[in-house]
Amino acid sequence: MEKSKITKAALSRLPQYLAYLHELSGQEVPYVSATKIASVLSLGEVLVRKDLNAVCGKGKPKRGYNTIELMRCIEACLGQRSATPAVLVGAGRLGKALMEYDEFERYGVRILAAFDSNEQILRPHRNMEVLPMTQFGEFCRAHDVKIGIITVGEGSAQTVCDQMIENGIEAIWNFAPCRLKVPENIVFHQENLAISLAYLNNRLLNRKIEGEQS
Amino acid sequence: MEKSKITKAALSRLPQYLAYLHELSGQEVPYVSATKIASVLSLGEVLVRKDLNAVCGKGKPKRGYNTIELMRCIEACLGQRSATPAVLVGAGRLGKALMEYDEFERYGVRILAAFDSNEQILRPHRNMEVLPMTQFGEFCRAHDVKIGIITVGEGSAQTVCDQMIENGIEAIWNFAPCRLKVPENIVFHQENLAISLAYLNNRLLNRKIEGEQS
Repeated sequence: MEKSKITKAALSRLPQYLAYLHELSGQEVPYVSATKIASVLSLGEVLVRKDLNAVCGKGKPKRGYNTIELMRCIEACLGQRSATPAVLVGAGRLGKALMEYDEFERYGVRILAAFDSNEQILRPHRNMEVLPMTQFGEFCRAHDVKIGIITVGEGSAQTVCDQMIENGIEAIWNFAPCRLKVPENIVFHQENLAISLAYLNNRLLNRKIEGEQS
Repeated sequence: MEKSKITKAALSRLPQYLAYLHELSGQEVPYVSATKIASVLSLGEVLVRKDLNAVCGKGKPKRGYNTIELMRCIEACLGQRSATPAVLVGAGRLGKALMEYDEFERYGVRILAAFDSNEQILRPHRNMEVLPMTQFGEFCRAHDVKIGIITVGEGSAQTVCDQMIENGIEAIWNFAPCRLKVPENIVFHQENLAISLAYLNNRLLNRKIEGEQS
């Protein structure tokens, strides 16, 4: 089973599968086929078959997947059996918007706390503490934090990134619009919200060009 | 020239190319090769060649691309020659965070104004007006707005989406964590920030499994 081959698009569908499997297990349905799942969720059958194969191998001929086993595989893939502890640095507007985002836990990540160097904004937000940067290292080590989310400005992003790595964080999600130097052993994702918008715009513009040509 | 084949990843590199081409045109360098661009920007040569081919066709043998022509092609692809007018509905934390995001214009989209139904928050933010929803339709038609960004909650996202379409908006970027019904002629992108985080987490978890197995 080659778990690492799961694509972002496939990952995005896993919570849907899981919700339906929870329903089935509530109804004590022991087996379920990719065909059935595809039909209920209005997805392509080939796609669903490929996704399930990637997370749980092939199902049994004719019967399909054991409902409970498939649930466990998807949960493991999403890291839901034990949510990965994360922290966020930079409790400005974007940071707070992310703290309000309820979807992360469904995908196996729990943001434990936010940090900020600005002492003016150290008030809890949505049941989450906003702590001073002076407590950052101790907190990360005490809670074995593995994921760090950077929502500070360009100017301090590299410093924050370095502090994260020094304190045992192994995966970093950077929202600051700048390149960061990150050692190779760190899992890194550079977020750029403008790209989604640029892609949308590009599809819109191309449609116009096609319309003018036809 | 098949412009519609440009990938999101390629689009994300275009502003880098453009910045370097601006430099070259300032130095009155008439031609530039994909090899040179790749080397200056520390990118793979095959990749750069493919990107440039997608936006501007093949360069001239030995000389490469005409600097000015390549700039114009990239600008056209990004829609920078005439930024596409956009509006945002929902001026809460996420909405305001997006209003502060400076990158959109570099990718050819200009957010003209934000709208909110909550009259309490109708103050300008970062030189951008926050207007009441009662003015939405008139504004969209007057400014020929083509892109709508939805940053309201789940409960009102469909209503906002319908209003956008009624008022001539042709492309919608939805941040509300819910499925929307959108006619086929509308360009639509569902944003789900959790997916990036899930992907990061998945890479982290897989690395651990590999480490344990080896």
